[in-house]
Amino acid sequence: MDAARPGPVAILAGGGSLPGALAEALERRGRSVRIVAFRGFADRRLARRADAVADLLDVKRTLNLLAGWAPSEVALVGAVHRPRPAAVIGAFASFRNRGEIASLLQSGDDRLLTSVLRLLEEQGLTVAGIDRLAPELLAQEGIMGRVAPPAEGAGSIALGLDVLRQLSPFDIGQAAVVCGGRVAAIEGPEGTDAMLKRVRRLMGTRRLPRAVGSVLVKTAKAGQDLRIDVPAIGPRTVGNAAAAGLAGIAIGVGQTLVIEPERTVAEADRRGLFLIGVPVSSPAEPQP
Amino acid sequence: MDAARPGPVAILAGGGSLPGALAEALERRGRSVRIVAFRGFADRRLARRADAVADLLDVKRTLNLLAGWAPSEVALVGAVHRPRPAAVIGAFASFRNRGEIASLLQSGDDRLLTSVLRLLEEQGLTVAGIDRLAPELLAQEGIMGRVAPPAEGAGSIALGLDVLRQLSPFDIGQAAVVCGGRVAAIEGPEGTDAMLKRVRRLMGTRRLPRAVGSVLVKTAKAGQDLRIDVPAIGPRTVGNAAAAGLAGIAIGVGQTLVIEPERTVAEADRRGLFLIGVPVSSPAEPQP
Repeated sequence: MDAARPGPVAILAGGGSLPGALAEALERRGRSVRIVAFRGFADRRLARRADAVADLLDVKRTLNLLAGWAPSEVALVGAVHRPRPAAVIGAFASFRNRGEIASLLQSGDDRLLTSVLRLLEEQGLTVAGIDRLAPELLAQEGIMGRVAPPAEGAGSIALGLDVLRQLSPFDIGQAAVVCGGRVAAIEGPEGTDAMLKRVRRLMGTRRLPRAVGSVLVKTAKAGQDLRIDVPAIGPRTVGNAAAAGLAGIAIGVGQTLVIEPERTVAEADRRGLFLIGVPVSSPAEPQP
Repeated sequence: MDAARPGPVAILAGGGSLPGALAEALERRGRSVRIVAFRGFADRRLARRADAVADLLDVKRTLNLLAGWAPSEVALVGAVHRPRPAAVIGAFASFRNRGEIASLLQSGDDRLLTSVLRLLEEQGLTVAGIDRLAPELLAQEGIMGRVAPPAEGAGSIALGLDVLRQLSPFDIGQAAVVCGGRVAAIEGPEGTDAMLKRVRRLMGTRRLPRAVGSVLVKTAKAGQDLRIDVPAIGPRTVGNAAAAGLAGIAIGVGQTLVIEPERTVAEADRRGLFLIGVPVSSPAEPQP
């Protein structure tokens, strides 16, 4: 490949606004972009401007497209739901062995995505994350919007980051809620929104007395591969945090995404929640 | 006090079968027992055999009873629900200062119980836990019932104990669920039953694929004061674990209680769940 003229970036696009935002950011940098929109996931506007539309499970077609484009980097962005087991078996049958497929079906989404990543790399492709392709899309340091954290916020944020750091080796916990100096919830596979709904039900009860400066803290796990999963918040996160009685949200600088940033910040302002980017240790640090 | 003839053990009895079980265990050891049954909490049979019935919030009466009995040890056992804030203020008004009461109302049950414990100690009383008074009531090592853990169980149990140990400094997490080599849930203030219901909803979905040997692991936090809170399981825990699709339950030896052990083990046998006591590091180890 000619180092002076890099090939295009190929975006394998799932749902949401992120694939479009990444394409725009890359074009602002003068990079050329090719997009595969996954049918049923990619949003309609993106699908119209995509270079190709493909079935998520038609692995061979996607690989053929990529081979034709000879991209410098491939990016996997946007939400896709895990397909049914039988569909996964069919899709991967020619590329993975039986034992590996069986273990994939037992494992979480992270491992499924890791397997996709490995498959792309075996084809000689380079997979890159938003942190490398367009870091300006990731959370910056400081307060977003008009609301500043209360005095109690700093301690709560530090406690939240601390518990998430301790949990890093366990493949659980991209997010936690701290309330009144106590960890009130740790996110499991249910996801951030379901965790916030749990806090909403508990908040103000005997089990979780209401407290000033309660906060949702979200960031990447130590060693998390941002090429396959970037922790994100958006307008819905803000709404659920407000409903749970929280004072605000803190996210890790350079490791998290604000989906639809303008709407998200406006929603936080409207609800009186603070939104802050806080420095955290690198997600690429080795795991214990 | 005459060391050769210790005074009675005074049991301050909340709900459930534990206060009665403790009284029996003490009498088997030849100790004399005095019981204050808290009105509305202690079960009826226990209230009949109690030496006195008192309102939970009538702190002065309870202290007067204790002063009269001159017990060698006082035990706080059985469930009580946290009273309403106004009631707590009234009850503690003569014993605690305003700032302390305000902070109690903001804090969790643990801190409320810690304050009760301190108050008793200020009166010259010695508060003792089940671990000292009747350790035979706590979980023993090994398999209870007829079901043995599957091969996958050992790794899951070890992982669960490990995550709970890491969380010890954070005052969260007496229990966790491990499923397919991953931590599927960490217990927060919602309690074990609510956590198991969460796992039940998630289990078998894309977020938490069903896996062999999934397990509930429950034990004390490092440094947890067993005088005020002993992690427990009972027949309802077994029912909820079965409904969540778990293979069994592992509890920390000498740090946890099986409530109504015969019914609990029978329920586990009936549902095909294993129940096992596993050795853990001492709960009295210093916190980091």
